[in-house]
Amino acid sequence: MAGVREVYGKKGDRKDSDNFGVDYVIHYKVPPKERAEAEAGFVQLIRSLTNVGLATEVRNGDPGSLLVFVKIASAELLGQQVYRGRLQDWLQGIRTSGPNSDIAQALEDEPMMEAERLRLVYQLITRTENEGGAGISQASSKWKFVADIFPLHDQAFNKAWIQKWSKKYLLDEADLEDIRHKFGESVAFYFAFLGSYFRFLVFPAALGFAAWMFLGQFSFIYGLGCGLWSVIFLEYWKKKEIDLAVRWGVRGVSAIQLPRSQFNWEYEAEDAVTGEPVKVYPYMKRLKTQLLQIPFAIACVLALGSLVVIANSLEIFINQVYDGPGKQYLGFLPTMILVIFTPTFSAVLMSAANALTEKENYDTVDAHKSALIQKQFVLNFMTSYMALIFTGFVYIPFGNILLPFLDFWRRTAQTLTFSEKPLPTQQFRINPERISSQMFYCTVTAQVVNFATEVVVPYVKQKAFAKAKEFQSKGVETHDHPEEAEFLKRVRNQCELEVYDVTADYREMVMQFGYLSLFSVAWPLAAVCFLVNNWVELRSDGLKIAISCKRPIPWRSDSIGPWLDAIGFLAWLGSISSAAIVFLCSGSHDGKLGAASQVTAWGGLLSILLAEHFYLLTQQVVRFVMSKVESPGLQQERRERYMMKKKLLAENVGQKAAEKAFTPGIETGEKSTKQALEEEARQASIRGHGGPEDVFWQHQRGMEETIMVGRKMIEQQVSQIEVVFTGTGTTSTAFMVLDRPNFWLLLRN
Amino acid sequence: MAGVREVYGKKGDRKDSDNFGVDYVIHYKVPPKERAEAEAGFVQLIRSLTNVGLATEVRNGDPGSLLVFVKIASAELLGQQVYRGRLQDWLQGIRTSGPNSDIAQALEDEPMMEAERLRLVYQLITRTENEGGAGISQASSKWKFVADIFPLHDQAFNKAWIQKWSKKYLLDEADLEDIRHKFGESVAFYFAFLGSYFRFLVFPAALGFAAWMFLGQFSFIYGLGCGLWSVIFLEYWKKKEIDLAVRWGVRGVSAIQLPRSQFNWEYEAEDAVTGEPVKVYPYMKRLKTQLLQIPFAIACVLALGSLVVIANSLEIFINQVYDGPGKQYLGFLPTMILVIFTPTFSAVLMSAANALTEKENYDTVDAHKSALIQKQFVLNFMTSYMALIFTGFVYIPFGNILLPFLDFWRRTAQTLTFSEKPLPTQQFRINPERISSQMFYCTVTAQVVNFATEVVVPYVKQKAFAKAKEFQSKGVETHDHPEEAEFLKRVRNQCELEVYDVTADYREMVMQFGYLSLFSVAWPLAAVCFLVNNWVELRSDGLKIAISCKRPIPWRSDSIGPWLDAIGFLAWLGSISSAAIVFLCSGSHDGKLGAASQVTAWGGLLSILLAEHFYLLTQQVVRFVMSKVESPGLQQERRERYMMKKKLLAENVGQKAAEKAFTPGIETGEKSTKQALEEEARQASIRGHGGPEDVFWQHQRGMEETIMVGRKMIEQQVSQIEVVFTGTGTTSTAFMVLDRPNFWLLLRN
Repeated sequence: MAGVREVYGKKGDRKDSDNFGVDYVIHYKVPPKERAEAEAGFVQLIRSLTNVGLATEVRNGDPGSLLVFVKIASAELLGQQVYRGRLQDWLQGIRTSGPNSDIAQALEDEPMMEAERLRLVYQLITRTENEGGAGISQASSKWKFVADIFPLHDQAFNKAWIQKWSKKYLLDEADLEDIRHKFGESVAFYFAFLGSYFRFLVFPAALGFAAWMFLGQFSFIYGLGCGLWSVIFLEYWKKKEIDLAVRWGVRGVSAIQLPRSQFNWEYEAEDAVTGEPVKVYPYMKRLKTQLLQIPFAIACVLALGSLVVIANSLEIFINQVYDGPGKQYLGFLPTMILVIFTPTFSAVLMSAANALTEKENYDTVDAHKSALIQKQFVLNFMTSYMALIFTGFVYIPFGNILLPFLDFWRRTAQTLTFSEKPLPTQQFRINPERISSQMFYCTVTAQVVNFATEVVVPYVKQKAFAKAKEFQSKGVETHDHPEEAEFLKRVRNQCELEVYDVTADYREMVMQFGYLSLFSVAWPLAAVCFLVNNWVELRSDGLKIAISCKRPIPWRSDSIGPWLDAIGFLAWLGSISSAAIVFLCSGSHDGKLGAASQVTAWGGLLSILLAEHFYLLTQQVVRFVMSKVESPGLQQERRERYMMKKKLLAENVGQKAAEKAFTPGIETGEKSTKQALEEEARQASIRGHGGPEDVFWQHQRGMEETIMVGRKMIEQQVSQIEVVFTGTGTTSTAFMVLDRPNFWLLLRN
Repeated sequence: MAGVREVYGKKGDRKDSDNFGVDYVIHYKVPPKERAEAEAGFVQLIRSLTNVGLATEVRNGDPGSLLVFVKIASAELLGQQVYRGRLQDWLQGIRTSGPNSDIAQALEDEPMMEAERLRLVYQLITRTENEGGAGISQASSKWKFVADIFPLHDQAFNKAWIQKWSKKYLLDEADLEDIRHKFGESVAFYFAFLGSYFRFLVFPAALGFAAWMFLGQFSFIYGLGCGLWSVIFLEYWKKKEIDLAVRWGVRGVSAIQLPRSQFNWEYEAEDAVTGEPVKVYPYMKRLKTQLLQIPFAIACVLALGSLVVIANSLEIFINQVYDGPGKQYLGFLPTMILVIFTPTFSAVLMSAANALTEKENYDTVDAHKSALIQKQFVLNFMTSYMALIFTGFVYIPFGNILLPFLDFWRRTAQTLTFSEKPLPTQQFRINPERISSQMFYCTVTAQVVNFATEVVVPYVKQKAFAKAKEFQSKGVETHDHPEEAEFLKRVRNQCELEVYDVTADYREMVMQFGYLSLFSVAWPLAAVCFLVNNWVELRSDGLKIAISCKRPIPWRSDSIGPWLDAIGFLAWLGSISSAAIVFLCSGSHDGKLGAASQVTAWGGLLSILLAEHFYLLTQQVVRFVMSKVESPGLQQERRERYMMKKKLLAENVGQKAAEKAFTPGIETGEKSTKQALEEEARQASIRGHGGPEDVFWQHQRGMEETIMVGRKMIEQQVSQIEVVFTGTGTTSTAFMVLDRPNFWLLLRN
């Protein structure tokens, strides 16, 4: 076991020293009002932790809270946990080979990552008692004073990480490995995706720049190129994702489902395969709740759609039609409407989405998350793209249908101003540049705002709180040991940080991909902006994790999850949307058109139909071509399986047999056949000639006899045939000629 | 080894007795012209067979040929082959567990099927010498006198099989098992597919009958129902296919590729994984040849398409326009054109397809077959559907564009008849019933013709040849042993039979599915006809295998192969085609319309767009729903893997550890933690207080101390906070309220 201790010790000494080897911090609130209850809970907490083999230390947190430091009590226990985790991985089919049964050897063969240790310890803390954990969960009412359970940031690593990235242009494999070791595969997948996406963006950025220079807006060629690009990027990422999962040894972990503690099951049943009891919630009952997603989606479309229509038509009215008093101030009105109502509606709908997902009562964390993400995607889709959809598919091509709206606003304005004479108005003219300026807002302004809310605001907030706390804690004495004071201060600060949510980061990127795929044909420079933005994003997301969030629990994952489907959906929709925009708008920017006059529905539908099928066809072709290339990860997997089987085979049937099985070779030469035949003959003679079968097979004993008999037959046949043909056989020739070319040949000679 | 002999013996005695235990017959031609060469080849043949452990007997065949009977020389060798085959299956991932290393035991656990034996013996005969076979192949020039290698029909089984089926309405699992045991999974899959398809046909047949009764042609409802049905059928079969493959233990066999002996490789490379040498033909070179498929497809469309246009317009001219002399005879002209030229063009194109596939130079039999099937599918698609496409999408909706053609024929007729006065003609009117009568021809007439060519013709031909042979062989004396005479006669007859090709049967069914999916909306009774036809087909295909074909080599397969894609393609195209037919033709059958006047392209495109997306959406929904159901086969597979891993685990790490791994449980109680902590403390004291980490963790020694310290902290904190709030702390309240709800609560009290 010394080996285990060394492995663990080494890691601990080298890297975690300034965290004193703490694995997790449990932030425990003690509201003075509920002191007794909190105290009882605290005692229970320490007992539960100790019971599963975790060592604890307690220190003062910020006023009203305790910090419980947790680490695994012994290297032996850690070794066992690692071994058991790996064994289960193997049983679940994630690993191709089981771990070595000597734990120390297993750890030497495959050293433990920090992320693995933290994940195992977290599971030890949070798993239910049945499953061998301490059963501590923030979600359960039993542990309501547990505010958070989080690992501590590795300051040295974070510092080095940020410094390294600030000097680098692109992420490489080693950087991803670092992230994976520290923050787990789930976060590493996000950075891998972002990195790949960033690199891929170079193509549409270059194409977009060229299109902007030479082709202008609504370029058919740009649309085609961009569609092609999105297909290739999607298929590339699908392959890359599998490849990474294999190389990181996590392929299939998505099949391991963490049970959701809030799940309400109706009855228990036995698993048909393993015989273990399974908690069941009737599928039909859930389906009924899931059907509520349809009214939810309709509500989203109606609420956010009408908001967009109202704000946009009002804006058009004020900017393009209205020419009365206060125009300069009224210009802000639509923006204010949007700024006020969009977040309000979103918040209401978001809480509806949360409630709905809660009610759907999923049994696993992943299913719950995925269902929630789906609903969020619908919401985000509406808030992000509705205005552009309105401009692209209503305002520019069919501007005239807005006239009743504009008229409504005119009358409203008339009423509000109490003036009897008609308001001064201009002639309404459709401005096709509107979509470009909207795209500009979405790509540039929104990204800047995003950056600010993601990085700057939390940073400022954190600093402000730190200052406030300093000020506040002047009155409170802390009796920290001097050698721990700095450490404890850091921990207390980390308690205040937000929990990192990788979903939000994915959402941002996926929505960006959507802008590119759906609307960039209207403003080809979008990809250039995104390229710049993502260069920053890559770093700001790193900064966010390192500075303004708690260190995430290093979960594993084997893909980017439901976002892949979202990207697929957006890419497909993009083929339709781009074709429609090109068709509907391309005529209008030379100023001659403006109304739907020359835009025939026929042409529109045809271009959509063609674009979509071009997309689907390209997808098939790209998939086919990519399927021909074996990625290094899959090759590695194949090699591992091959080696594992070869090894198992060698163990089970001996080396020789194993080698033979791989080269399905000869073994029974002539000799053995002869022997077998002799044996057969002997058997037959013992049995006294046996059945008719034995008689049949003993007409010719051995090879030489068969050859001899066969030769005799050939001789006879040839002579016979000659007799037939020179003699009586001519009558049947016709039939024979039909069937046997050889006879035909014979006749000619 | 006695076990092996018994297993083999039992089977042999019971079933194969009238075949004298013969595994294979090699039909060896001896053209008198090439006697010497043939004789040398024969000697070589017998030597090669004997070398790999096969026993041989030779008898006279029909004049000019020998019959070499082959069986495996000993039960031991057979046992080894079975073991090795299963071991390789396991290595390839087809089996979840390796066979028992005791061969006799392995055969007892899992008795050998007849199909397995025949497959192994065939491989022993045909595999190259490197791979441990005799290397005998009809395709190679070395063995040009080997006319055929085939197993013998099991007369008793065939008789019972045909009798049983004639009394049954549907195939059940046991019937499929029988087929599988005798003819292998490849044939069993065809019958399983046909059976499922037949059962599924009941729905469109009923719907079609109802539509025909109440809704008439071109019913939107029927089209919708039929589209829905095709989605469900396709998805059902995909699941069923996997299920069957798992239950038959063949899942993944399609990954085992038989090398194609005609493959010309350019260089040898090492497999990146296994390190074995692999023969390589450059991918790009093949791709270049594959690109020739595009001109090939264009040639198909042009040749067969123009044929259809010519014949159809001529027919329309003669039947609907021409009213001159000889109308009753001229009516046959278009049919004759089709009857003469369609097979001619098809034959030319088919040989082009063969040559092209040959030139593409695939390394495996499956890849070659699949490429050939693809080309054949294009050809079949054209010959089968072109006429209907012409009627449905040209003649009925846009009949007027045929006028130039009709005019051309009128002028031609004028010229040919040398008459100066204009030919008597009628006014051309579009007859929408034309598509129905064509469908009727395709479904009823064509199926009858098919049946005749498939079953009746071969049967008659065979009888005729048998008679002819009898007549012819009067002059030739045969010296058969009396007890073998009847058997040898049967074998000689079987030599004359055709090789069974399951591809042709699949093609027939897939083309039928295409009629249903693409055009049945024009004649809803089609499905009824297909239902009747397939009831007969199921039996006639059985008859064909049993009576008019050689017994097939019992190959394995794990799916219906490329036909699945073909069905998917036809189902998808059907959604478009049906929508278009309904839209284009539905207005016309009340007699008012006829030209494209009211048919707007806009509506047509919209209905296609909607139908296609309805199809794609339905597919997603059906897939999702079906994915929720775990099929028995997959469940079995999961169970097998689970048991296998549990077993392996028990072997590797002992029973106890295995059980623990499955119930990830507690093991380290309080005691062990205490021990560990004490150990830790002892270690620390030995090391003399160690680093700061050790100091940190030894502030509180053991659980009770942590609890005590924590309680003290709670007490202190609560009193401190009270001091702060009653004393100087009020200034910082604002900040705290913002962040901490507990403090807010505190303030209210």
